[in-house]
Amino acid sequence: MNAEEFRKFAHEAVDAAVDYMENINDRPVRPAVEPNYLRDLLPQQPPAKPENFQTVIDDFNHVIMPGMTHWHSGKFCAYYPTGFSYPSLLGEIYTAMLATNGFNWLNGPAITELEYLTMEWMAKMLGLDAAYYSGDGRGIIQGSASEAVFMTIVAAKNRTIKALQAKDPSVDPWEAATKLIVYASDQTHSCTEKAAKIMGLRFRALPTDDTCVLKAETLRQAVDEDQAQGLVPFFVTATFGTTSTASIDDIPGIVDTARHFGIWSHIDAAYAGSALVCPEFRSLAGGINGADSFNVNLHKWLLVHFDCTCLYVKDKQALKDAIAITPSYQQYKELISGAVENLCDYQISLGRRFRALKVWFTIRSYGISGMQKFIRGHIDLITHFKSQVEADGRFEIMNKVQFNLICIRIKPEYCQIAAASPAADPTALANLTNSRLVDLINASGVFLIKSDLHGKVIIRVVIGSFKSDMLSTDFIWSVIKRCTDEVLAPTICTTTASTTNEAG
Amino acid sequence: MNAEEFRKFAHEAVDAAVDYMENINDRPVRPAVEPNYLRDLLPQQPPAKPENFQTVIDDFNHVIMPGMTHWHSGKFCAYYPTGFSYPSLLGEIYTAMLATNGFNWLNGPAITELEYLTMEWMAKMLGLDAAYYSGDGRGIIQGSASEAVFMTIVAAKNRTIKALQAKDPSVDPWEAATKLIVYASDQTHSCTEKAAKIMGLRFRALPTDDTCVLKAETLRQAVDEDQAQGLVPFFVTATFGTTSTASIDDIPGIVDTARHFGIWSHIDAAYAGSALVCPEFRSLAGGINGADSFNVNLHKWLLVHFDCTCLYVKDKQALKDAIAITPSYQQYKELISGAVENLCDYQISLGRRFRALKVWFTIRSYGISGMQKFIRGHIDLITHFKSQVEADGRFEIMNKVQFNLICIRIKPEYCQIAAASPAADPTALANLTNSRLVDLINASGVFLIKSDLHGKVIIRVVIGSFKSDMLSTDFIWSVIKRCTDEVLAPTICTTTASTTNEAG
Repeated sequence: MNAEEFRKFAHEAVDAAVDYMENINDRPVRPAVEPNYLRDLLPQQPPAKPENFQTVIDDFNHVIMPGMTHWHSGKFCAYYPTGFSYPSLLGEIYTAMLATNGFNWLNGPAITELEYLTMEWMAKMLGLDAAYYSGDGRGIIQGSASEAVFMTIVAAKNRTIKALQAKDPSVDPWEAATKLIVYASDQTHSCTEKAAKIMGLRFRALPTDDTCVLKAETLRQAVDEDQAQGLVPFFVTATFGTTSTASIDDIPGIVDTARHFGIWSHIDAAYAGSALVCPEFRSLAGGINGADSFNVNLHKWLLVHFDCTCLYVKDKQALKDAIAITPSYQQYKELISGAVENLCDYQISLGRRFRALKVWFTIRSYGISGMQKFIRGHIDLITHFKSQVEADGRFEIMNKVQFNLICIRIKPEYCQIAAASPAADPTALANLTNSRLVDLINASGVFLIKSDLHGKVIIRVVIGSFKSDMLSTDFIWSVIKRCTDEVLAPTICTTTASTTNEAG
Repeated sequence: MNAEEFRKFAHEAVDAAVDYMENINDRPVRPAVEPNYLRDLLPQQPPAKPENFQTVIDDFNHVIMPGMTHWHSGKFCAYYPTGFSYPSLLGEIYTAMLATNGFNWLNGPAITELEYLTMEWMAKMLGLDAAYYSGDGRGIIQGSASEAVFMTIVAAKNRTIKALQAKDPSVDPWEAATKLIVYASDQTHSCTEKAAKIMGLRFRALPTDDTCVLKAETLRQAVDEDQAQGLVPFFVTATFGTTSTASIDDIPGIVDTARHFGIWSHIDAAYAGSALVCPEFRSLAGGINGADSFNVNLHKWLLVHFDCTCLYVKDKQALKDAIAITPSYQQYKELISGAVENLCDYQISLGRRFRALKVWFTIRSYGISGMQKFIRGHIDLITHFKSQVEADGRFEIMNKVQFNLICIRIKPEYCQIAAASPAADPTALANLTNSRLVDLINASGVFLIKSDLHGKVIIRVVIGSFKSDMLSTDFIWSVIKRCTDEVLAPTICTTTASTTNEAG
């Protein structure tokens, strides 16, 4: 493909992108394909000769697109959203035009320096203390919250072992590592446990209360117990907006307790952290400035394309000590003099895309006010949705609706009433009925997921897509309502009851 | 920014991209900026209100662009190249248009399935056995070679400890981990050592021979020594195309030795693996199909944008066992039934971009023949360049030129002759003179780096940019020649000798 062919197909791609996004709500949100659908539609052998790109785009439209889930549709209410905005898309185009590898300052000074600037801007917009991005602190872009949490665990582990050795030089670092233990709650995103698993570290999931909140007292008890066993608690993740229910841990208490015991406290605000661009959410975020590190995914709820997790650490040297290796061929005078640092020293990968560009494009195009408007727009929609749920009367709201996630379930008594005969186990019946409801909703043009809340099946509805609006929100509610009518209709419930019996 | 504003600026971005790439060789390859140049040019506070995107693009052109290094310029000979091609850029645009998160099959079946297909295509194009991508094997895209090596070390560690426990159930996994040791050579990319450091594992750099090759016998000796010390060797990286000199380890011997001792052997072919699309390079790659895992970066020398490392493992379950965690909200029927798997189970991050799209666009647009032509074009250029170096007579060629990297230095005798008085230490004088040469070349419109080869400063010249051609190659040579004249001119050498004396 030469430059002129590219120009033609790229102009078409731009128009295709606008057409796609502006009409995304008209598409079925999920594809109607079975596993391995693609295998029969594309050749098993790579082409020997170049193909005309028109053929490729035709296949893209007829083979790939029918196998896509449309994350930015207003009918997408699953998980948490992923980021999209037009300025961010422009950032991706310019990033791909430049196609640099910014692993150090030398290889594109603007890449490193714009990352510093945008991370400072973001910190200021979120209300983070300067200790997170200046002096000994540093804000940098990681690929995901999982990566951010992983990196901070690595840094905390290294720092803890060094501290143990400083107290007692006879401490064996390998031996010491076997005693370390990571904490998170039973509601924390799986990435903390995954990081501990990968690192071969002990992990303990601390129980949350009925509202899915991790209390400081629970942490304190665990530390006491584990220290009595000879273990060394060294890391805790506290969450600002948990995955299942968007709950907020007792961050001030956890941060204080962690500091008391010399434990690294990390705040995972992957999803809800974006709300902090609006001052009205700051009162929920007490304690976040007391932690050792903090992450928020701009690629979730703040208009920036994946991948873009902002990680802020107060002790940047702890990360570099644990991670950095600089071979001879990567030395250069500005590094040796200390005038610059290498961003690759904060991550596993050497290579880096120019990710700050899309952040800069997005912040400037939206401004603080535009980002606030985006967040508040979703809050208005969820408030509207919630009022419909409340008016219906058949649902319980299962979380404290503080952001744009609402968790609901059909009340157990409605499941009982609809059943042909009373069920022996009302919780099991409610779970089965709500699971059926989820399946039916997902077969009816909306995409959402269920979760498990202390043994109860809950239905998560997130209103946070780029193209969420009043129309799509009302559509979601109409689907849920209609599917609930169907699930609770006597004939269905007879089947439900019979399924229950079979399962029992 | 609304859709129509985006359309306008995106069409301009397309034209800007063509203009940028087609005229990239006219730009200075490196920027003339000092550390922290950006700080004075952009506001320290994020904008309160939306800004017109034209202002942003003006700043991009006047503030960001002057701080960029141009990786695809024919004058860029540093490191190894990073990937660019027009079809791949189209892939990035469509990926950003869809802006999905393909962490599991459900969230975009095409994302997972196209990744399988393209990884199979690549394996076939590279001559990899089916064991690497079918049955128990799996090819998947990682963000970088560093990530790929890291993941395989995690898998190997987990598998090794399980095997130890299977033999002796009393083995304590934490205790066992303290005995594990990772091997690589003193020429292996730093990512293997970095991974060991992050994981808190023992690491040993094995010495290479004069040609920078790791021999099987060296590995065997190290294993014997370490086992005698009670350690457990469990992982070795063998490199196909090392970073400094593009050397090829004794892969058949290392793979055999590793198998004999139950050690996981990984082939890091990050850079040179791309050459295997041409059959004439296959004879250099004996043994690669006998290893446990293999990686190649399409984002280095095979036209695909960063990030795109293909990782192939023969025991995919070993990776999943070591990494995967699936919380309740990520369960779905196709996963539970075993019909599909989650690509997030092969990596640290949960989230994933749709990276297979650019691979598919690129392979189809180029075909096997087009990719071969791209590689062979660079081989022709390096052959031409090498003949000029040889004809000049003042240079030693310091590596076996098997790909598109040539390592040279001014012969020590020329440095001696040029010096005002004979230097006491010819090696030190040669190193100083060649280092001066590198600085001078980099100040004269070419970008390359030096490296250290067993104590000797060598100058690496890679001819592998998207816009490398005969004109740019001749320009590189003319700059090197002119700078060498200058470095070897008597006045300069007096200074050199004096610097040597000062240093001594």
